[in-house]
Amino acid sequence: MTKTAAIIGGGVIGGGWAARFALSGWNVAIFDPDPEAERKVSEVMANARRSLPALSEVALPPEGQVKIVPTLADAVTEADWIQESAPERLEIKHKIFAEIQSHCRKDALIGSSTSGFKPSELQQGALRPGEIFVAHPFNPVYLLPLIELVGDDATTTRAQEVLTEIGMKPLKLRKEIDAHVADRFLEAVWREALWLIKDGIATTEEIDDAIRFGFGLRWGQMGLFETYRVAGGEAGMAHFIEQFGPCLQWPWTKLMDVPELTDDLVQKIASQSDAQSGAHTIRELERIRDDNLVSMMRSLKGRDWGAGALLNAHDTRLEGKADPDFTKPIITVARAIPIDWTDYNGHMNESRYGQLWSDAADALMRMIGADDAYIKSGFSYFTADTHTKFRNECHAGDTVTVVTTILEGAGKKLRLFHELKNSAGDVVATCNQFLLHVSLETRKSCDPAAHVSDKLASIIAAQAALPKPEHS
Amino acid sequence: MTKTAAIIGGGVIGGGWAARFALSGWNVAIFDPDPEAERKVSEVMANARRSLPALSEVALPPEGQVKIVPTLADAVTEADWIQESAPERLEIKHKIFAEIQSHCRKDALIGSSTSGFKPSELQQGALRPGEIFVAHPFNPVYLLPLIELVGDDATTTRAQEVLTEIGMKPLKLRKEIDAHVADRFLEAVWREALWLIKDGIATTEEIDDAIRFGFGLRWGQMGLFETYRVAGGEAGMAHFIEQFGPCLQWPWTKLMDVPELTDDLVQKIASQSDAQSGAHTIRELERIRDDNLVSMMRSLKGRDWGAGALLNAHDTRLEGKADPDFTKPIITVARAIPIDWTDYNGHMNESRYGQLWSDAADALMRMIGADDAYIKSGFSYFTADTHTKFRNECHAGDTVTVVTTILEGAGKKLRLFHELKNSAGDVVATCNQFLLHVSLETRKSCDPAAHVSDKLASIIAAQAALPKPEHS
Repeated sequence: MTKTAAIIGGGVIGGGWAARFALSGWNVAIFDPDPEAERKVSEVMANARRSLPALSEVALPPEGQVKIVPTLADAVTEADWIQESAPERLEIKHKIFAEIQSHCRKDALIGSSTSGFKPSELQQGALRPGEIFVAHPFNPVYLLPLIELVGDDATTTRAQEVLTEIGMKPLKLRKEIDAHVADRFLEAVWREALWLIKDGIATTEEIDDAIRFGFGLRWGQMGLFETYRVAGGEAGMAHFIEQFGPCLQWPWTKLMDVPELTDDLVQKIASQSDAQSGAHTIRELERIRDDNLVSMMRSLKGRDWGAGALLNAHDTRLEGKADPDFTKPIITVARAIPIDWTDYNGHMNESRYGQLWSDAADALMRMIGADDAYIKSGFSYFTADTHTKFRNECHAGDTVTVVTTILEGAGKKLRLFHELKNSAGDVVATCNQFLLHVSLETRKSCDPAAHVSDKLASIIAAQAALPKPEHS
Repeated sequence: MTKTAAIIGGGVIGGGWAARFALSGWNVAIFDPDPEAERKVSEVMANARRSLPALSEVALPPEGQVKIVPTLADAVTEADWIQESAPERLEIKHKIFAEIQSHCRKDALIGSSTSGFKPSELQQGALRPGEIFVAHPFNPVYLLPLIELVGDDATTTRAQEVLTEIGMKPLKLRKEIDAHVADRFLEAVWREALWLIKDGIATTEEIDDAIRFGFGLRWGQMGLFETYRVAGGEAGMAHFIEQFGPCLQWPWTKLMDVPELTDDLVQKIASQSDAQSGAHTIRELERIRDDNLVSMMRSLKGRDWGAGALLNAHDTRLEGKADPDFTKPIITVARAIPIDWTDYNGHMNESRYGQLWSDAADALMRMIGADDAYIKSGFSYFTADTHTKFRNECHAGDTVTVVTTILEGAGKKLRLFHELKNSAGDVVATCNQFLLHVSLETRKSCDPAAHVSDKLASIIAAQAALPKPEHS
């Protein structure tokens, strides 16, 4: 049954939560007294629709309904998950939780997006304190997977399951602490940055460059400790820390003190930021950021590491395992075209058609039992020849399918015909692909295992009554 | 003329510098009294050779000579750039600079890899103080582009040119300060992390996850300020800072104080790190890190942003602009195969052959004047049909070329034959590619501009005497 999320507060963060849930197939009800809420949420949703599906190599479930409702009660009464993203003032949050709990289901999960308050503070005076927990996300919520979870163990364990299901990375913290974990680092860096600007050591752009051309790249894939473990080398982590240790006595940071945020300092930062980024509007910067994040996270999928490993696991979860009905045309690929597949002509680069044929062949291989385990056992199919006809264009965000027909499948030969179709059902391109079954040891062709050729034969038999595709 | 770099200290950092210079075509002389230096440098060189060339879509210049020399004088006498990467003790560095300056050329650039000392400290008592400056790199030096440059303006301006030439991102700082800029942030984060572990709030793995699934991804492409500018939205940066401001008064960080590095704390960190990363050796982790970095930086090339924009500019620098000799076979692609082009079969995925054909066609288009400016003017070539024959395999790190023959080039039709050759000259695959000249406005085919068809005709005429390639 379709689940429902209630989003209390529809700003950038609340809108991001709404997009995450809706694009994972949940219905979403948003309550926000701001008359601008509908516009704000629809802008975040638009950004999410153009970027989040591109993180998956499979189609996301059909999008849930998103509606703005007139009262908090309307939003929460039926909700499975309630997410509070109100301003960071404890008295406001307490009032909201009281109203939520007087209307919501007793098994509803009630998360707070607070970046600073501890669950014990949020729970003060609540009707059922244990239901309220911290679920702290990171902007843009529809792309960045991390959620810091803090609260009662049983509740956050249930929350962890839900977040995993919608593709996020819940991080359950052991103890509550002001600002949780990640924001303590952000706060430390922010303070140091304010000093550097105040003292005229660096501009906002120079600081950003010092991050994104250096350790920022390291931190996008390994964190602090694994990075230092590698840098420390064979001598080990303890040795490394002891070497690094003396620096702690050096006056390398101004963090013992806090700079005063005078008007002068605020204006200095604002005008440096204009000089650095003012050529782009905020909307443009959002899209640049999202395209960058999608591309970087997708690159980590190829390495099956960090955020990429998480995405791969989520794809597997979305894909399911059931065999299709082989008396019908076989859909081997169903997906959105990601931004990193397009080129300077504004459309999908020709090489990515090859990617789709390759992915289609992989899907068919899995269907006939030539799966990961079979490849590990030393056998695979290699492509010997492809002939692609390009009939039409594809663009980033297009939803496409590949329908694959087995033209020949006997002995070591496998001849496939792929039709790439857009969401209107038009054929965008076709490919005749000829593959040979090989031994990965000798790199020479050979017959497949019996279970593979048997399965292939049974699928060919099941498909026999289907009309041959045009132009095959 | 081939330039020479002298590397004083051949550890992880010195070895990284050696690799950067050598793979940019410089000769490199390394001095390090450590008897293990040769092994250590060769390990770093091996890592660099498998990853750095993969950052480029064009071939790097032929690798320079790398030798370990018996004395410091042998290393520095002829050097254009001298890089000191000795231990972080000022008296050692002073001794080294004195010896360097008694042997080196007067116009040599003398950089120090110090992460903490200011140039005024390094220059104390030097023969020619103004020649010595800070050139602070980030590990792995052969991949991460950032270099913090601090020192006399004229000297660091010269250093900036050299570093840009070898593909790095020199960041000239306005004022000297302990630990420059980036390491102040690293130091702040490190201190906060030590507290979190000491207080049992999070383990090393949880801290790394809090970074790499959240803000670490943001910082790999935008830094701190541009990220917050986007988050702040239309209200502007000044408004955002004012909102964020009050947190500065909150006790969110322990950084006013410094944790004592007791044996207990060191052991706690080391054993948590073992639990987190111990399944991989340091060598494995190095390669995982390098493959991740290459993939992420390459993904940013597609967006022409940050480290990716830097790499694109460097490719253009490497490629040069001169027309090839059209009476000889036309080489349209010369490059290494990057790790992100390989698949589970351990070889280059079939889609990447399509990438090479696409890149080859792009290169030929530039040669006939259908370049970026022409495309901006509203015309391009679209591929209508490709026929690829796969004869052999390619692996990550292989150096390949594509030789392109024009089979037909008249009116709106362009028919190309591409041969992909490995470094031994064997043909790995071929492609017949049929392209149509199109208007980007109507998306329909049309004749090219006169300067394009004229140039195409002149190349075809120049090539007429060449033998036709086999199988074309």
